[in-house]
Amino acid sequence: MRSIGVGVVGTGFMGAAHAYAFRTAPLVFDLELVPRLEVVADVRREAAEAAARRYGFARAVGSWRELVDDPAVELVSITTPNDSHREIALAAFAAGKHVYCEKPLATDWADAKAMAKAAREAGVSTLVGYNYIRSPAIAYIRRLVQEGVLGEPLYWRGIFEEDFLADPATPFSWRCRRDVAGFGALGDLGSHLVGMAMFVMGPIASVVGDKRTVIPERRDAPSEASAELYGAQIGAAAAKEAMRRVENDDTAHALLNFSSGVTGSLLASRSHWGRKNHLAFEVFGTKGSVLFDQERFNEVQLFLREGDPARQGYSKILIGPAHPPYGQFTPAPGHGLGFNDLKVTEVAHLLEGLAGDTELYPTIPDALEIERVLHAIDRSAAERGWIEVAEVD
Amino acid sequence: MRSIGVGVVGTGFMGAAHAYAFRTAPLVFDLELVPRLEVVADVRREAAEAAARRYGFARAVGSWRELVDDPAVELVSITTPNDSHREIALAAFAAGKHVYCEKPLATDWADAKAMAKAAREAGVSTLVGYNYIRSPAIAYIRRLVQEGVLGEPLYWRGIFEEDFLADPATPFSWRCRRDVAGFGALGDLGSHLVGMAMFVMGPIASVVGDKRTVIPERRDAPSEASAELYGAQIGAAAAKEAMRRVENDDTAHALLNFSSGVTGSLLASRSHWGRKNHLAFEVFGTKGSVLFDQERFNEVQLFLREGDPARQGYSKILIGPAHPPYGQFTPAPGHGLGFNDLKVTEVAHLLEGLAGDTELYPTIPDALEIERVLHAIDRSAAERGWIEVAEVD
Amino acid sequence: MRSIGVGVVGTGFMGAAHAYAFRTAPLVFDLELVPRLEVVADVRREAAEAAARRYGFARAVGSWRELVDDPAVELVSITTPNDSHREIALAAFAAGKHVYCEKPLATDWADAKAMAKAAREAGVSTLVGYNYIRSPAIAYIRRLVQEGVLGEPLYWRGIFEEDFLADPATPFSWRCRRDVAGFGALGDLGSHLVGMAMFVMGPIASVVGDKRTVIPERRDAPSEASAELYGAQIGAAAAKEAMRRVENDDTAHALLNFSSGVTGSLLASRSHWGRKNHLAFEVFGTKGSVLFDQERFNEVQLFLREGDPARQGYSKILIGPAHPPYGQFTPAPGHGLGFNDLKVTEVAHLLEGLAGDTELYPTIPDALEIERVLHAIDRSAAERGWIEVAEVD
Amino acid sequence: MRSIGVGVVGTGFMGAAHAYAFRTAPLVFDLELVPRLEVVADVRREAAEAAARRYGFARAVGSWRELVDDPAVELVSITTPNDSHREIALAAFAAGKHVYCEKPLATDWADAKAMAKAAREAGVSTLVGYNYIRSPAIAYIRRLVQEGVLGEPLYWRGIFEEDFLADPATPFSWRCRRDVAGFGALGDLGSHLVGMAMFVMGPIASVVGDKRTVIPERRDAPSEASAELYGAQIGAAAAKEAMRRVENDDTAHALLNFSSGVTGSLLASRSHWGRKNHLAFEVFGTKGSVLFDQERFNEVQLFLREGDPARQGYSKILIGPAHPPYGQFTPAPGHGLGFNDLKVTEVAHLLEGLAGDTELYPTIPDALEIERVLHAIDRSAAERGWIEVAEVD
Repeated sequence: MRSIGVGVVGTGFMGAAHAYAFRTAPLVFDLELVPRLEVVADVRREAAEAAARRYGFARAVGSWRELVDDPAVELVSITTPNDSHREIALAAFAAGKHVYCEKPLATDWADAKAMAKAAREAGVSTLVGYNYIRSPAIAYIRRLVQEGVLGEPLYWRGIFEEDFLADPATPFSWRCRRDVAGFGALGDLGSHLVGMAMFVMGPIASVVGDKRTVIPERRDAPSEASAELYGAQIGAAAAKEAMRRVENDDTAHALLNFSSGVTGSLLASRSHWGRKNHLAFEVFGTKGSVLFDQERFNEVQLFLREGDPARQGYSKILIGPAHPPYGQFTPAPGHGLGFNDLKVTEVAHLLEGLAGDTELYPTIPDALEIERVLHAIDRSAAERGWIEVAEVD
Repeated sequence: MRSIGVGVVGTGFMGAAHAYAFRTAPLVFDLELVPRLEVVADVRREAAEAAARRYGFARAVGSWRELVDDPAVELVSITTPNDSHREIALAAFAAGKHVYCEKPLATDWADAKAMAKAAREAGVSTLVGYNYIRSPAIAYIRRLVQEGVLGEPLYWRGIFEEDFLADPATPFSWRCRRDVAGFGALGDLGSHLVGMAMFVMGPIASVVGDKRTVIPERRDAPSEASAELYGAQIGAAAAKEAMRRVENDDTAHALLNFSSGVTGSLLASRSHWGRKNHLAFEVFGTKGSVLFDQERFNEVQLFLREGDPARQGYSKILIGPAHPPYGQFTPAPGHGLGFNDLKVTEVAHLLEGLAGDTELYPTIPDALEIERVLHAIDRSAAERGWIEVAEVD
Repeated sequence: MRSIGVGVVGTGFMGAAHAYAFRTAPLVFDLELVPRLEVVADVRREAAEAAARRYGFARAVGSWRELVDDPAVELVSITTPNDSHREIALAAFAAGKHVYCEKPLATDWADAKAMAKAAREAGVSTLVGYNYIRSPAIAYIRRLVQEGVLGEPLYWRGIFEEDFLADPATPFSWRCRRDVAGFGALGDLGSHLVGMAMFVMGPIASVVGDKRTVIPERRDAPSEASAELYGAQIGAAAAKEAMRRVENDDTAHALLNFSSGVTGSLLASRSHWGRKNHLAFEVFGTKGSVLFDQERFNEVQLFLREGDPARQGYSKILIGPAHPPYGQFTPAPGHGLGFNDLKVTEVAHLLEGLAGDTELYPTIPDALEIERVLHAIDRSAAERGWIEVAEVD
Repeated sequence: MRSIGVGVVGTGFMGAAHAYAFRTAPLVFDLELVPRLEVVADVRREAAEAAARRYGFARAVGSWRELVDDPAVELVSITTPNDSHREIALAAFAAGKHVYCEKPLATDWADAKAMAKAAREAGVSTLVGYNYIRSPAIAYIRRLVQEGVLGEPLYWRGIFEEDFLADPATPFSWRCRRDVAGFGALGDLGSHLVGMAMFVMGPIASVVGDKRTVIPERRDAPSEASAELYGAQIGAAAAKEAMRRVENDDTAHALLNFSSGVTGSLLASRSHWGRKNHLAFEVFGTKGSVLFDQERFNEVQLFLREGDPARQGYSKILIGPAHPPYGQFTPAPGHGLGFNDLKVTEVAHLLEGLAGDTELYPTIPDALEIERVLHAIDRSAAERGWIEVAEVD
């Protein structure tokens, strides 16, 4: 059995999710290429060591450079804050290594472009962590759209709302900084929406958007929670002043025109009370429609205008073995997958791609196209009118 | 007990709803001023007679003029197609009569303005049939917003989708004609959304919108169904050619800025399969959020960030006596109101207003403000940019 | 057009519902026989007069005897408390009049039997107010079962929960008295369940049941609310002592064997917090299943094991014109009926039956069969074992 | 770090779930005692080898005896069909080893009793695989009940429906055999219900129940699927005759009296179309109620009669970090756990118990109490009356 040496940079929420997924994917999927867990890196050395111990990596290091330089590492997993992705990725490419990177690529357009350019030039494989598109429900919905079950697609509506910054009393964190996080909800949540839209519906041609920082300033306290979750340099910059201005959007929304002629809209917010992981979208076509909500991601609501009108209605389909790759996890329908299972599925996709058995999606260049749309929305918000996405270059 | 003489123009879907509501309101509400059912008018004389018989009106006539001129008629109810509202309303105002008119006011802006001007000058009372805003759930949600239960409002999202023109095989009807119907989904459904938004959230300052005719042409057959439902002149114009171009929008959507600083968005479509009466909206504020869906209009979903986080979630509130005016219909909670009950409530509101006990809303001038927003969306779609609503004049 | 003279006894919750329905049915249904609203009776004379005025009855009287004796009254509607049904019904039968009676028939088995016997001997028409079985959803479900769409029926589960006596602080009322109300939840709510079960699934052969008074005693205060709602003699018996023993069941449940071989179960409770009108039932068959909940009675959930397994799921069907008699109320699907519309449908059924156009169900003898099952459950609870329903005689 | 040697007997659906959970638990939980993956056993030697390879066990063997005798194995995990549990468990006890066994314990009462007796005498630790009770939602609901948040508990209703044998065309399998499987739905699904009921509500004192084999005979074909899933000796007995009589119940239901005075009911069926994993239960108390459905096990519906009646309704609580041990899996609320995560949680509980940090539940003696109730229901179905659970001995 072939194997590939893996190094994971970062041990926060996403670092743990990557390490877990590399460890677990071979238990669930029949992989041709299996991961060898080589190195974990974190500037907090003891965090790296704890993660290596827990997830069964061979070594822990205190710097990502050491990980990238390690000859046993063939694949570099980047889970550190957004402003560090570029430097790590470019070093990995320079060392001829494959890269698996969390989204968004970068905090600004130039960095994202540089990453995509370097990825293309390096000729290595890349994957960006849009894990939600790997769920069985999404694979099924994409098939419904592409096989014409819904007829000719007409409209796509997407929403991604959470409430982690809904409370005005929640202190300022790295997520509120333009330099470290880039966009706010638009980048953090909107990127998932745009990725989902493009995965299911194809490219977006033009947008008109708007953004708001609904809670303009926050108490400037060192966020220990965020330091713990997201690791590293952050949080350290604990402030002296009482209140600090939030530098990016809490809420962003846009109208969309897809290249196919389909129209649509999206909304991303991190301050909508009651929503925890409300990544929801709907597709309407000339023969039916489908509704999805990540908070109940083991279900799909499908309406088809077929047969007796008295029986027509949205069918609540419980995801099961008829919806690959659900059956890898359990043979029993309606038993449900969890969030971590999606990351496991993503890593299985990555390993299948690296083995040459499937085409990876979204690669770093694919992810640049997603971010091009985000920048178009941002620019539209500033210029107060429609923007052709291709104008962002 | 005081009474007021009522004449209803039109005997289609809405004509029947008005007649039913005038007959039924006094059974349900304790009214100071009760309706005297005087005249029904329809160009199809026998339809007028049948309606008069069924609903207990004293007389039937074959022309609306005769109804307006009838001295016993003090209140004129206009339920004919949109292109006839202006002429009938102006005649009623000239005769010094109160007017109860279906929405939208007119098929173009000039007519709508003329109606509002005439209404103001006539000094009579008016009400426009935005019946959905009269439901107990909406009264309750409005109170939640206005009393600050949701905190400072941040975002409003509204959707009104139906599927009555989702089937490409559905033939061309009067609803597809610019001259008879005015806007398509934007006018028919979007007007309800904008009315709801303004009723709950206050005035809208600026918009950017887009529109689509997703099924650009339809078989040109005489629609007997629509003739039956909406009566009169329509349908008669049965066409000769095979296919006919649809003249107005199937789908319209927009981003909104309210005068209060709240942002929002709306979508109206008559071609979204699976949706029957999906007038749904959501309000997010700094302390909570509320969700509403007309397809389940006896429920409200309320989230408040109060108390133990482990217990927080959307509460599915079943409308009951704690939500006036539900208790007028039945003392038992969770038993539910129906569509016709909303029209009855609207008529009770009208009669209370005419008795001087409450301020009527929306009057014809109020409805003009709603339509101003629709015209701003329409203009924005043409000009491809943001429009100040006040610029529509 | 033929008409029939109607007298309504009682002006409480159900009296109002009857009067409303007689007045409204001809507005909604095309009736061959229309009601003439002749007399309202209530021991509280002024309540009778107010009701007569509101609902347009010709006369008000202070005693039901006067109503029964009125030669213009051909149909007697009985809405007074359960312990008064027998006497009024028997007087009406003696006078050769048709009877429309609220359920349950009586507070004990002997009275119910006497009513059914007298009804059969009088040869007049009767109907008992099991209004929930008149909803379009139930007509549709019954058809699904009877036409074999669900395959061979296997199981029926029914629940009717409300919470109007869930609060231990709610005072003693007439509903807690064995002599006035008869059974508790078993009679008040369980009768609806059994009626629904028999309407959809056919006769019940044997039962084993149990009952509980979960709140054994209540504060003995005069219940003005109940006096207001249910009128008459009740409430008057306002007590002196502090607490009073509840004399009937708060909760009753049973396992069932239908004559067809189908098995099932039921639960009725008036003390289950959170439930307002939770009359819910499910039917499972060899080809599919159907779920119903009165709190959302404009919907039906239907599962059919047909076609692609990947698409199978419960369809949430919104009741509309494809589900008669919905279209009588509105031509637009998904707009919804309300509680009062069900009573209107029941009265239309009654008038169609009196006109000879349909067979009435449930007549008083039919209702006796429903109550036979309730008495079998009661006896089973006492005897602690299975009871053949036919043994109750 | 302390470790314990683990051997897993069986490689079917549950064998894989155990192996996965032992491998994954230390990634998710901070364990004092970690599993050493020593041996996998399956009569199909190559299946054992494949499982050992996939899940990282040191050795594979072709017989459970070899596993039990292996000195490195300290804990024996039993996932083979129900008729084999006793022999393996008793051998493990004889060897002084801890036992982790799937439910139900055995196919008859004598075997189950023997296992419990042997477990007590051996003085080792045991756990039975009632994994659903380990979910965060259940821990939360149990706390709500035990802390009196719902007031005094009044009623418990439980349902466990699946449709894996709903299709009459599904062939006969080992699950239909009394000797191999024991009870049908009553044992397979009803055991979970009774376990859940006792975990949340305490012991059950008496029952009256009934059972049905709704599809009395099935085509007798070798079920490859079941051989694949459940491994071993089964399926081999592929039959010659066309149809074979089903030997156990498809559906079982009962009324319950808990020792606390609470009443309740349960239903288990493996032939209810549309239900995939519908393990649903409800608790009603004097202050509120709670609803749970395993098909949406990341949610809890909670009703509390507190505060403003206009705001009361069932709250849909999304499980999150406020509901331990959810936070072990992800720090983000509403992201959801999957079925395999429950088994991981169960194994973590087992390891915590073996480390002496918590009291294990349900042990094999605890599970005997669950099965005592099942046997009481079975006996009641035969004797047609109420049975005291304690009479089963």
